[in-house]
Amino acid sequence: MASDAGAASLDGIDLLRPLPPEERAALARQCRWRRFQANEQIIDHLGETRDVIFIAAGRVRVLSHSAAGREISFDDVDAGGFLGEMAAIDGLPRSASVAAVEDGTLIAFLAPKPFRDLVTGHPDLAIAVMKRLCRVVRLTTDRVMELSTLGANNRVHAELLRLAKRGRAEGGAAVIAPIPVHADIASRVSTTRETVARVLSDLSREGLVERRPDALVVRDVARLEQLVEDVRGGA
Amino acid sequence: MASDAGAASLDGIDLLRPLPPEERAALARQCRWRRFQANEQIIDHLGETRDVIFIAAGRVRVLSHSAAGREISFDDVDAGGFLGEMAAIDGLPRSASVAAVEDGTLIAFLAPKPFRDLVTGHPDLAIAVMKRLCRVVRLTTDRVMELSTLGANNRVHAELLRLAKRGRAEGGAAVIAPIPVHADIASRVSTTRETVARVLSDLSREGLVERRPDALVVRDVARLEQLVEDVRGGA
Repeated sequence: MASDAGAASLDGIDLLRPLPPEERAALARQCRWRRFQANEQIIDHLGETRDVIFIAAGRVRVLSHSAAGREISFDDVDAGGFLGEMAAIDGLPRSASVAAVEDGTLIAFLAPKPFRDLVTGHPDLAIAVMKRLCRVVRLTTDRVMELSTLGANNRVHAELLRLAKRGRAEGGAAVIAPIPVHADIASRVSTTRETVARVLSDLSREGLVERRPDALVVRDVARLEQLVEDVRGGA
Repeated sequence: MASDAGAASLDGIDLLRPLPPEERAALARQCRWRRFQANEQIIDHLGETRDVIFIAAGRVRVLSHSAAGREISFDDVDAGGFLGEMAAIDGLPRSASVAAVEDGTLIAFLAPKPFRDLVTGHPDLAIAVMKRLCRVVRLTTDRVMELSTLGANNRVHAELLRLAKRGRAEGGAAVIAPIPVHADIASRVSTTRETVARVLSDLSREGLVERRPDALVVRDVARLEQLVEDVRGGA
């Protein structure tokens, strides 16, 4: 446990923004605080804890592992977000593990009972927690649809399109920086690193993707979108 | 619209059980009521409505279709349940369609604003809605893991095991009645009817499954469980 991680501030947590500052400060003192290094585990899916975690600094990743050791990742959450609310709400075992992505990731742990009292006591917080759960359902449902209807190649195209849309636009192109790690793309669309490498190299040969020293560039986002929509059929 | 579907009772809806009877009756009068025949669409995923639906009688199915017309089903909900809360909470488009499974399915439609006021005004209802969303996340996440790590044959085994566990135990066997429709199993595990038929016929040849006139019998649930766990690796 890092010594600089006493009761730090929860002022940057989006969910808690509607609270008066003094209530947020009191909540911060109720939390257990800890700092993590990259790849260090924050929540073990086999663990007994049911705490909610607030990400005060850094970035975390939600992931599961198959028995064969394949990593299936679900979502990255940046500073300002929260995670672990499902076990706090329904008391059931963790559905996945959570690990730090960046060094110095600062986490506040809040026990389930005070979390439930907090959200049920503030209608806007209750709605915000429900909205977050809805977002997770929607993302996961989209993934079921993709896994059910698209082949691995097209799932890589779809993931690349998502990254492009979050990237920096340059005319009809999109700049994705830093260059995404093949293994990360693979674990997000449930395929192998080799498949990701092959699809990217095919797209590069076709001139649709260009690898710069510090970024991956999708040179024609509309054409990539067309490629994905053609297979998905505009569904 | 069926004429016998005036303001019927919401007394059988689990979510609303904590409410005083007179509040439940007032809510029933706020709803629009309609009766549906089997296969009739209740919520169109392309529609603009954001209502929550309470299933007062009958049974409904949540489903999506791929562009190629393949049906991907998500969940069946019986009388006493509710659906459609996501669009009511986050205001975003429907994630799927809902259709009646049984004739005479009786539905109460509640507009998004009164639904949100209802759940935020009652902490136990807010927690119940969150728990339901958590359940959907957990089911959908399990499905992503199965689609990512199991082949189609093993996904059929896993679905058969789920049906067996909900069925009637007979010693070490389980009786699944009525006989599940191949197309329903196929749409729940994202494969084809042909694959389901082939897997069931293989299991039948091995003596693990027996088809009776009115039921499908898994003769050794422990052995089926072993079959699934061996592949999943006990994860």
